[in-house]
Amino acid sequence: MLRLYDDPISGNGYKVRLLLAHLGRRYDYRRVDIVTGETRTPDFLRRNPNGRIPVLEFEDGRCLAESNAILWYLAEDSDFAPGDRWTRAQTLQWMFFEQYSHEPYIAVLRFWAHLGDQLPPAQAAQVPERQAKGYQALDVMERHLDATPFLVGENFGVADIALYAYTHVAHEGGFDLSGYPAVRAWLSRVMEQPGHIAMNELPKASAVSAAE
Amino acid sequence: MLRLYDDPISGNGYKVRLLLAHLGRRYDYRRVDIVTGETRTPDFLRRNPNGRIPVLEFEDGRCLAESNAILWYLAEDSDFAPGDRWTRAQTLQWMFFEQYSHEPYIAVLRFWAHLGDQLPPAQAAQVPERQAKGYQALDVMERHLDATPFLVGENFGVADIALYAYTHVAHEGGFDLSGYPAVRAWLSRVMEQPGHIAMNELPKASAVSAAE
Repeated sequence: MLRLYDDPISGNGYKVRLLLAHLGRRYDYRRVDIVTGETRTPDFLRRNPNGRIPVLEFEDGRCLAESNAILWYLAEDSDFAPGDRWTRAQTLQWMFFEQYSHEPYIAVLRFWAHLGDQLPPAQAAQVPERQAKGYQALDVMERHLDATPFLVGENFGVADIALYAYTHVAHEGGFDLSGYPAVRAWLSRVMEQPGHIAMNELPKASAVSAAE
Repeated sequence: MLRLYDDPISGNGYKVRLLLAHLGRRYDYRRVDIVTGETRTPDFLRRNPNGRIPVLEFEDGRCLAESNAILWYLAEDSDFAPGDRWTRAQTLQWMFFEQYSHEPYIAVLRFWAHLGDQLPPAQAAQVPERQAKGYQALDVMERHLDATPFLVGENFGVADIALYAYTHVAHEGGFDLSGYPAVRAWLSRVMEQPGHIAMNELPKASAVSAAE
């Protein structure tokens, strides 16, 4: 059985859980606490030398890191994968946009808000610039989603999953989506997909246990 | 003919030029100056609303952004694309690592060094943390490349191109690679590939002209 190493606070992990739910796949779920440094133990670093969750572990011990690479792997040959060369390229365009121009601002400010008073001053000084860049990313999404129901054409797919994960909790990082009607309509369309699970719905069918 | 919008200083643009050279593809080359804001003009933003180079434009006007998505598109069905589901996943794992854990540190410090005295104090304050994270990325590469000739197994491919672009000029951002023998041996293997071009080799066979 597939095993997912994840912290429930992580949108990157939620991407994988959301796709696995859509695919109806059972898996073993292992909690790793990113705040207390459980991704930096020798045991975890054997699975991902870069020290980040999520990590997907196969029965034979192979491990795959990077949430969007995991989405790509799991989605292949399913309805959630793009079907031709051009839509594959557009899907990856949005997934790289997510990791470079969206996650470092929208996800990071949410994580920093979660840290509260524990946020170091050097990080606190970066908040205004990260807010501005987060809104730039939302502007790009708004303009695009004003013209198309999903990020890549008519079909819900892995690009939508990749960008939904942190956009739908952007308010937890202080972002106000009231000026983004097309983004909000798209969030609703994603939520209405059959098989959707919320971020706090951890897998029921398989064991939830602390990482050894 | 394909048209590439690029700034010669950009490693992200060089990735695309390097793959096009390996593929033997001719293309039209358009210079866009990222320092003077040419990626923020209405004309450029029509091609990429996210305001970044490189952008690949097709003859019918379609545009594709994000260097690694462009690599994926151009490489499909070539020797530089991974050949099965697992190597596709590993290739994307390294390409997402590049954009999230490598480029923001190794490429950004090089760009900031290029700005010299014009670097704003808020950015200057981030240099030590970005240096540390850049070395962490190099550590991950070193450990991996100590055991394998290329990033994904025995074959040179788009993951190598994606990570070569900024790693081979890491010294321009102040990184010292003397403690990274496996990374340096890999850089040499990439340079020795037939068809390799240097970062400053702009296309000769097609017109180089300022973006209109």
